[in-house]
Amino acid sequence: MPEIEFVLCEPLYEGNIGFAARVIKNFGFERMVLINPPEIGDEAIARSSHARDILENAERCTFDEVIEHSNLLVATTGELSKTISTAMRMPYYSPSELRGMLDGIDGRVSVIFGRENWGLSNEEVKKCDIICTIPTSPVYPIINISHAIGIVAYELAHLTRREYPHATRTEMDSLYSHFNDFLDRIDHQDFKRENTMIMLRRIFGRTRLTPREVTTMHGLLRRTEWHLNNKK
Amino acid sequence: MPEIEFVLCEPLYEGNIGFAARVIKNFGFERMVLINPPEIGDEAIARSSHARDILENAERCTFDEVIEHSNLLVATTGELSKTISTAMRMPYYSPSELRGMLDGIDGRVSVIFGRENWGLSNEEVKKCDIICTIPTSPVYPIINISHAIGIVAYELAHLTRREYPHATRTEMDSLYSHFNDFLDRIDHQDFKRENTMIMLRRIFGRTRLTPREVTTMHGLLRRTEWHLNNKK
Repeated sequence: MPEIEFVLCEPLYEGNIGFAARVIKNFGFERMVLINPPEIGDEAIARSSHARDILENAERCTFDEVIEHSNLLVATTGELSKTISTAMRMPYYSPSELRGMLDGIDGRVSVIFGRENWGLSNEEVKKCDIICTIPTSPVYPIINISHAIGIVAYELAHLTRREYPHATRTEMDSLYSHFNDFLDRIDHQDFKRENTMIMLRRIFGRTRLTPREVTTMHGLLRRTEWHLNNKK
Repeated sequence: MPEIEFVLCEPLYEGNIGFAARVIKNFGFERMVLINPPEIGDEAIARSSHARDILENAERCTFDEVIEHSNLLVATTGELSKTISTAMRMPYYSPSELRGMLDGIDGRVSVIFGRENWGLSNEEVKKCDIICTIPTSPVYPIINISHAIGIVAYELAHLTRREYPHATRTEMDSLYSHFNDFLDRIDHQDFKRENTMIMLRRIFGRTRLTPREVTTMHGLLRRTEWHLNNKK
């Protein structure tokens, strides 16, 4: 697994640096590198919230020092037509493509984000190995730097949600069998039976029930059956 | 295609509303709905940047009005262990899974984001059809609301980057043929030839050259050949 660091190249606003620290930590990363940042004050600290450690441990480097310590440099650039027409910023990859490209890479990978007002210079982009661009609307393509970092971090995080179990084949079959008995109980017409059962399988198949939901469905059917059997 | 709207339920800070408007527009969406928001002032306007139209056109609704006008309600919730253990917030889907679930759905889809400090209430979640959770680090799972909206909007946007062409099979074959001739020119040993050609195909195959890059490679080879032929 590569060790990913997020590099902010000459950020202008401390608030963005604080927000950046927060999303970096939200997605399980730890390293923030700052190239010539403004003074870090109360606003950055407030916006970093519980990621003040990321902010305080941020490494201060020059661009050349980043190049020196990094195994792979990724330049992130906005999707501006005036810049992508040049060979220097081509070809470019989306964050999800980047995720695939980093699979199996070892060492330090630096994902570099440019200045809020004009991004990275051609000189800086030239020194990078891969160009990454977040696909945005042509109506308003310029994303706030902390939101851009959030999206790249989200894609690179490889986080899986805590897993919850789905009902097993056996549990589902038992539910369908219960449905079938229930259809008997309500004198569902024979000629419709097969199609109705198929429809129930379609509905409950695509909804991917949890075991608890299966139990609840059985409960509802049983409760209905009891009322049918004990009706006045 | 569903018409997606982003609903902020009782947001506390106008700054977050401004940032939300901006990311909504960044990913090509237009509709923001505000349930009982704070006063919108200079900070929201500043942070919305060129998405002031989204901010100004935001619809003010009650939760029940959202339910009434919407075809599908998606509750977004933080991945807190105390909440996900309840059946009400299960099963939950990631933003990329949500994207798949909305494929082919028509009508208005409301993606609802809760308060900055305690999210959505159980009463509110109960009224929703689908639960969506952004996978985050257990170390610091609480994402700023505007960053959460950004990530969901990014996933739901279905935006494709402007396409650029890759070199065709014929262009690549012509390059490999040029490499092969070049190996002749530098007396590359016969017994190594096949492996070297395979390696060149591997390298340039996986790097997916653009036509312009192929042209440049030919140019470099030709320039080298000229120097080999005209050496003093």
